[in-house]
Amino acid sequence: MKGAVLAVGTELLLGDVINSNAAWLGAQLAAAGVEVVASAAVGDDLHRLVAAIGQHLIEADVLLLSGGLGPTVDDLTRDAVALACRAPLERQAALEAGLRAKFAAYGMTMPAEVLRQADVPRGAEVLDNPVGTAPGLWLPLGDKVVVALPGPPHELRAVAAPLWPRLAARSGTVVTTRQVLLSGVGESTVAERVEAAVTLPDGVSLSYLAGGGVVRVRFTTSGPPQVLEPLLAAVDAVLGDHVWGHDQDTLDGVVHDLLGTAGQTVAVAESLTGGLLGAALSQRSGSSVTFRGSLVVYATDLKEELAGVPAALLEAQGAVSAETAAALAAGARDRLGADWGLGVTGVAGPNVQEGKPVGTVHVAVAGPAGGQVRSLQLPGDRDRVRSLTVTSALDLLRRHLQA
Amino acid sequence: MKGAVLAVGTELLLGDVINSNAAWLGAQLAAAGVEVVASAAVGDDLHRLVAAIGQHLIEADVLLLSGGLGPTVDDLTRDAVALACRAPLERQAALEAGLRAKFAAYGMTMPAEVLRQADVPRGAEVLDNPVGTAPGLWLPLGDKVVVALPGPPHELRAVAAPLWPRLAARSGTVVTTRQVLLSGVGESTVAERVEAAVTLPDGVSLSYLAGGGVVRVRFTTSGPPQVLEPLLAAVDAVLGDHVWGHDQDTLDGVVHDLLGTAGQTVAVAESLTGGLLGAALSQRSGSSVTFRGSLVVYATDLKEELAGVPAALLEAQGAVSAETAAALAAGARDRLGADWGLGVTGVAGPNVQEGKPVGTVHVAVAGPAGGQVRSLQLPGDRDRVRSLTVTSALDLLRRHLQA
Repeated sequence: MKGAVLAVGTELLLGDVINSNAAWLGAQLAAAGVEVVASAAVGDDLHRLVAAIGQHLIEADVLLLSGGLGPTVDDLTRDAVALACRAPLERQAALEAGLRAKFAAYGMTMPAEVLRQADVPRGAEVLDNPVGTAPGLWLPLGDKVVVALPGPPHELRAVAAPLWPRLAARSGTVVTTRQVLLSGVGESTVAERVEAAVTLPDGVSLSYLAGGGVVRVRFTTSGPPQVLEPLLAAVDAVLGDHVWGHDQDTLDGVVHDLLGTAGQTVAVAESLTGGLLGAALSQRSGSSVTFRGSLVVYATDLKEELAGVPAALLEAQGAVSAETAAALAAGARDRLGADWGLGVTGVAGPNVQEGKPVGTVHVAVAGPAGGQVRSLQLPGDRDRVRSLTVTSALDLLRRHLQA
Repeated sequence: MKGAVLAVGTELLLGDVINSNAAWLGAQLAAAGVEVVASAAVGDDLHRLVAAIGQHLIEADVLLLSGGLGPTVDDLTRDAVALACRAPLERQAALEAGLRAKFAAYGMTMPAEVLRQADVPRGAEVLDNPVGTAPGLWLPLGDKVVVALPGPPHELRAVAAPLWPRLAARSGTVVTTRQVLLSGVGESTVAERVEAAVTLPDGVSLSYLAGGGVVRVRFTTSGPPQVLEPLLAAVDAVLGDHVWGHDQDTLDGVVHDLLGTAGQTVAVAESLTGGLLGAALSQRSGSSVTFRGSLVVYATDLKEELAGVPAALLEAQGAVSAETAAALAAGARDRLGADWGLGVTGVAGPNVQEGKPVGTVHVAVAGPAGGQVRSLQLPGDRDRVRSLTVTSALDLLRRHLQA
């Protein structure tokens, strides 16, 4: 079963909006056992849209459209589907009543054009939109199906939720992807060790994805999911403490879970990251149980005053040094009253600082049984150095929590 | 002159990578006076690639490809261009020597397949890659041109840099886009006021783009750029202190510039944002001149201990209150020794806190001549509430610096 994705909107062609819907839809299709053969963006142009729908239906069994379902004159997806699939639009009384009720509930007067969202191509099934006004559409065409979904990502995801089991049932395949998540080791080392340890059964594929200081080892199969279990176990065994999670785990989530299990907390003192490490540790809801706070000591004098880094140390070693990172970690732990402290300092760039090159980063942990500093030379520009520093710090704490 | 973008790579179809190159290339084409009529992603499949190139060249005068120029067997863009355009690959001695020299300089042995990057379709011009090994290609086809660019975004941008003036010269048009940047006002109010104040000259178009707490008013013309000046001035006049910048300005950059001019500094005490406000204020290089640091007081007791919010106030009003925000701003200013303090507290969600609904946010500024609190009800999920809080806080400080 083959699938295609058409994202609708001139703003996508002009680069005002990055087409993240296409990536999300592609991933969902693949997981539902549908081979994604094409993905395109089309402007708000009726003729081009009609042509694109027709053209993609030559090969695709499932065509997903996103966007262009709103109430305004440049929302053309409904009309294009109706024309391309010869399924004229019919106003549905129930949808019209629902739209009127929604506006009445907010005490707003409804512009007449809103009712275009109650128009449905003949034969199409309406997909409920629990978070917006534009419903989705499921239009069967013989053995094929055209599905239109709203463009705003949170609406798209809500409306599309019931699709994936239906498409998986149609494709007759469920593709299972399992992944092992690692940090502190390069992709090529991972690949070498995995390939020496693992023999792939028939119908299982293996891939690697690296980025942001994380390497993902992925196994995919359309056969029985249990076949992947021993493969994950083998990767875990051969890569040891570089492994921090599986599947949908996040590094901050794993850290919070480990802290929570131990009944412990963490605090941070950070320099080059400017608050990004604290932001990562407060990303997950409920993180206040295990995250106390952060001292963002961007100015050098604050490293002494707020985080207690000795002036003599700053003088002798500089703000960017292993010793300062260790003192920041100890200061965070002490002054914010946490079981664990993390300290980070470094040169984010673009300029050399204290004679130290861009990417020089020191990451320290201080805990109940002492501490550790890791000195790194990170690649990339300012944004990348800052973001890799966050991953390195979280991973250092994770290793100590698992030790 | 019409253009199309083809992004190459199965990872784009499967959603492992978001197609940000397409957005960037689309924006550059539009600025060079090329109308973007199509944008698609194609997997690593020679036949599909050849077909897509041929199909898009029917309409497009300029076809830009990104990705698939690397050394491995699934890098097929070179071969596909050669087949689709009937321009057989020829190994270029100068490129081969360059590749050998690059590897020798790093003391690495060169795998033989690397030399595929020295293969050039007959008649193509080589576009130098200053930051990687895969050069770009510029292949003229009568009045049309096919351009192949490497996939990694920083390589793409570097290799493509010389293209834009060439394409603008070919299109004979330079499209000028100017924009006014605003916060603290809704898109519909902006549109209403702009449309009452401005009469568009022939050949000038107007559009709005809203997101992340910022509204952009955009004027575009392919005529003389000066015609846009009075339009920008009219928007500035009619929207007053909601306007914080123009064109490529960023809100954090504007704040730093205003602080720098005044010889002043800012410090932050933040709760729900967990460090994101400090991260925004340290994003730009050189920000240490005007940004001192942040107290991320995520745990309630730290609001008292570190930022000096009175315990009685926390007890009476709660951690999420206008009074606490004001005390945080004053505490940051005082304890971090800055001219200005910003304080933010609120409910990021997903759960109600202290009986206050998700999106309840208080943003405060404290300055040399007193302070101000803004109480907001922000829309969206946890990530969006946190990010809109950052924009609101920066905008509040910006208004005080401009007052």
